[in-house]
Amino acid sequence: MNDMMIKGAQLVSNSADRPKTIVQLTPEVAIGGPEIVIIGGPCTVENYDQMDKIAFHLKGHIQALRGGVYKPRTSPYAFQGMGVDGLEILTQVREKSGLPLVTEVMAISQIETLADRVDMLQVGSRNMQNFDLLKALGQTHKPVLLKRGLAATIEEFVMAAEYIVSHGNPNVVLCERGIRSFDPYQRNVLDLGAVSALKQITHLPVIVDPSHAAGKRELIADLSRAAIACGADGLIIECHPEPEKSLSDARQALSLPEMAALVSSVGAIAQAVGRQFTSTDSPRA
Amino acid sequence: MNDMMIKGAQLVSNSADRPKTIVQLTPEVAIGGPEIVIIGGPCTVENYDQMDKIAFHLKGHIQALRGGVYKPRTSPYAFQGMGVDGLEILTQVREKSGLPLVTEVMAISQIETLADRVDMLQVGSRNMQNFDLLKALGQTHKPVLLKRGLAATIEEFVMAAEYIVSHGNPNVVLCERGIRSFDPYQRNVLDLGAVSALKQITHLPVIVDPSHAAGKRELIADLSRAAIACGADGLIIECHPEPEKSLSDARQALSLPEMAALVSSVGAIAQAVGRQFTSTDSPRA
Amino acid sequence: MNDMMIKGAQLVSNSADRPKTIVQLTPEVAIGGPEIVIIGGPCTVENYDQMDKIAFHLKGHIQALRGGVYKPRTSPYAFQGMGVDGLEILTQVREKSGLPLVTEVMAISQIETLADRVDMLQVGSRNMQNFDLLKALGQTHKPVLLKRGLAATIEEFVMAAEYIVSHGNPNVVLCERGIRSFDPYQRNVLDLGAVSALKQITHLPVIVDPSHAAGKRELIADLSRAAIACGADGLIIECHPEPEKSLSDARQALSLPEMAALVSSVGAIAQAVGRQFTSTDSPRA
Amino acid sequence: MNDMMIKGAQLVSNSADRPKTIVQLTPEVAIGGPEIVIIGGPCTVENYDQMDKIAFHLKGHIQALRGGVYKPRTSPYAFQGMGVDGLEILTQVREKSGLPLVTEVMAISQIETLADRVDMLQVGSRNMQNFDLLKALGQTHKPVLLKRGLAATIEEFVMAAEYIVSHGNPNVVLCERGIRSFDPYQRNVLDLGAVSALKQITHLPVIVDPSHAAGKRELIADLSRAAIACGADGLIIECHPEPEKSLSDARQALSLPEMAALVSSVGAIAQAVGRQFTSTDSPRA
Repeated sequence: MNDMMIKGAQLVSNSADRPKTIVQLTPEVAIGGPEIVIIGGPCTVENYDQMDKIAFHLKGHIQALRGGVYKPRTSPYAFQGMGVDGLEILTQVREKSGLPLVTEVMAISQIETLADRVDMLQVGSRNMQNFDLLKALGQTHKPVLLKRGLAATIEEFVMAAEYIVSHGNPNVVLCERGIRSFDPYQRNVLDLGAVSALKQITHLPVIVDPSHAAGKRELIADLSRAAIACGADGLIIECHPEPEKSLSDARQALSLPEMAALVSSVGAIAQAVGRQFTSTDSPRA
Repeated sequence: MNDMMIKGAQLVSNSADRPKTIVQLTPEVAIGGPEIVIIGGPCTVENYDQMDKIAFHLKGHIQALRGGVYKPRTSPYAFQGMGVDGLEILTQVREKSGLPLVTEVMAISQIETLADRVDMLQVGSRNMQNFDLLKALGQTHKPVLLKRGLAATIEEFVMAAEYIVSHGNPNVVLCERGIRSFDPYQRNVLDLGAVSALKQITHLPVIVDPSHAAGKRELIADLSRAAIACGADGLIIECHPEPEKSLSDARQALSLPEMAALVSSVGAIAQAVGRQFTSTDSPRA
Repeated sequence: MNDMMIKGAQLVSNSADRPKTIVQLTPEVAIGGPEIVIIGGPCTVENYDQMDKIAFHLKGHIQALRGGVYKPRTSPYAFQGMGVDGLEILTQVREKSGLPLVTEVMAISQIETLADRVDMLQVGSRNMQNFDLLKALGQTHKPVLLKRGLAATIEEFVMAAEYIVSHGNPNVVLCERGIRSFDPYQRNVLDLGAVSALKQITHLPVIVDPSHAAGKRELIADLSRAAIACGADGLIIECHPEPEKSLSDARQALSLPEMAALVSSVGAIAQAVGRQFTSTDSPRA
Repeated sequence: MNDMMIKGAQLVSNSADRPKTIVQLTPEVAIGGPEIVIIGGPCTVENYDQMDKIAFHLKGHIQALRGGVYKPRTSPYAFQGMGVDGLEILTQVREKSGLPLVTEVMAISQIETLADRVDMLQVGSRNMQNFDLLKALGQTHKPVLLKRGLAATIEEFVMAAEYIVSHGNPNVVLCERGIRSFDPYQRNVLDLGAVSALKQITHLPVIVDPSHAAGKRELIADLSRAAIACGADGLIIECHPEPEKSLSDARQALSLPEMAALVSSVGAIAQAVGRQFTSTDSPRA
């Protein structure tokens, strides 16, 4: 397996005498254990009702909520997220629903406030090699969801995780979210070979974001099933109570019934690959 | 679904009043029906014993045999395949095992001879836009396995199939085999989003070649399961009685026991997505 | 220079004891000698007047004419070229203008007819690894313009040339025409690093097609100057008497006055890098 | 020119009533004016002697010095740069040679110290969309050298510049440094079409880094000439007194005599495209 391993990944490399990393978001929710974890929510936190609806309808289907309050946008004139107001909404929804929260951190200055309020900090694709941010996150013990860069090699991705772990924080979850290709048909190309490789060469959990990969909602259910069949430990999927009104990424957000249906179909695959999957409730419509 | 459809794909586009295409290799083996089909065999036909061993050990596990006798090689000095001698071997193995055969056609001048002896003609990635070859294949009724070009867009892939069908041959199976990316880690990146899209926008069967995508045998079982979970109608996988002695692509060929194990694990996924899968025999070792 | 050379390129590799290849289109026009050569013309031969106008206005500015009569089109329903009728037009224009002709060959069956009428046979990007076509061209002595594949590595490009030369035809000119990238802004990305490399590692002439690379006429003059500054032996550029009415590639065709202006600005660069450049006439408007 | 322009680039877009931006590094050295500017120096500041030798030998050939003291490295265990000690060296060399300095800024916390000591702050490719860093640099008036991301589209590159300018700092120079491709032959592919486009659609100066593009020193002189012929306002090139002993990027660093020779050959191209170029001294060996 020599040409599989990444030289220099001293701490995150898989080896016989190292247990698989399990990252606890809360005492109840862990990524990397026997259970598949599904994280759902909108690209951007827009208002309380939006988040409350998602939590209400999907609790029992999903294990954690996502929602951005600081948004990395190509244009400085695009909506940059609700900031602290959005964080306040997230906090309320977390309290009411009991669902753990994942949100993106874009700057060292945001770490402390975010870490107090949410359960997992996401490093976005554009910051995968923002090494000062990685080092600062390494000095916390907060779970980190590290997304693969837009055109990062597997080696660069693994070594970005090594930055966080080598600075003291072992709670890293890798997230494959598609890489850039020549084909405008999809937003990105989901690289499930990378998921298989990362599961074999590191001891870190690996989840998949089919929403940003495909960029088209029609492809998301198939890619979700494929990701779990390929060995992923979970999924992070964009959904919205009214996808067509979403402030960003409208074309790729699932409606809440679509999301519930997807979750249930993923369960069958999880079983087929020997994973557990808890979807306690039936969809509430 | 407007931005999903490929404009101009008049004949291969999916539509309400058109049945899904089912391509019969033999009266017993069809691609695109309820059953998943697995095609296995070496990159290159090397001798009778090699092919006979594969057929003997994998009959019951796989539904068709692959093996190249005309090989498109980057270098003019590399082994170009056994040619007609290889075809003779294929014919004998077909007769003895009853397994249908798939082999690559590289030139119009080879079509007639190959079509007489094998059950499906493969158009390789390098020839996906060899339009004269496509037109000539369109004038036969032989099943064609059309592999996606090294860096072909989904649109170009669909339109290449349209070339064959519009010239008279409806028996086309699409094959996703990975596209070129910036990451040297894998030989190519398997694009399962394309598989999902092709199943939705065309009525043609779609199979997946995880061997050429990954280029590393350790990734092939995961990618095979992912492909079936994603909706693929089958798989084409490289295997060899002694992978390390393979004349080409040694790094990606599975051993026969690895192949048998893979087939059985794929069966569980096929069931989970509501497909049938016939693996009549237990592995013979 | 070890990691520069392509292993296995026995015949086309540069070496101290091998002269640089100079490919004669006619006794007067050679590619690979001290003079820069500019080939101009439309994507597609449309009618006699179109070709006659181009030849009349650009004679003295350009050294050869291009024009496709067999066109590789993504869609089977797109105009496939005028075929033999177009070839008849090319023959008349050649006779009247004295300009040598370059046209694309798509199939072995076309070689003989085309070779009788034109001075150089172009292998298009989609056929760069159509090995049977390369072998057949290797059995002629006709100059071949080999375009780089859409996503061909430098190694694959060099080895495609090796196919032709090893089958007996030393008259090969390489053409860099842009490679596929993730950025939809340009049609392709012109890879001038490849031009520099090919000039160093092979003894073959190398020309550049900025039209297909950029896909936007506003970029073509800059890229043409860059190509010559980088060491290219010539250019092949699309132009049309009425670009906006061009049957194909309208967005990238230059008008005839734009073409004449470009040629003159390229001359200054040619001088600056020690090359000769003959533009005998002043533009006729 | 509609499909050339980037929508939303309100401040950096070229327009008839806006002058071209000229960025002054010092009263004597400006980028974007009639003169071509060449910035040379090592990847990494290693010691005083190294920097002093470069400044001594290349003064008169180059207009500014580069040298990294904070280095973005894929591995956390690779040399991360000399930090403040390196900055002290840069300051001494600047004082002695009079050459302005360019160095990379990786974090908001470094801006103030660096801005006091050097003349231009480089944003590396990995940070092109580190929006908080861009915003913070927008609040200074220090010249910023913004390198294109590893796989950034032209639109994303332009909009990253818009982040800096819209936050108050008009002194932005764009730097094309190659983009990722499928071909391992070169480190990246230099995209000179982007240089032509950026010069046309923005009023910002554009320079080119051929060293990181090619990754092989044999290609750098050709690409440098091509860049100037294409309209670039300058070059940033890696050189080292003893390239083979360079702590990083040894394969792409030029020796000082190679650098001096390159500069002189670039001068001829600058003239051919109507630019000025001052190389006051002859090389001191």
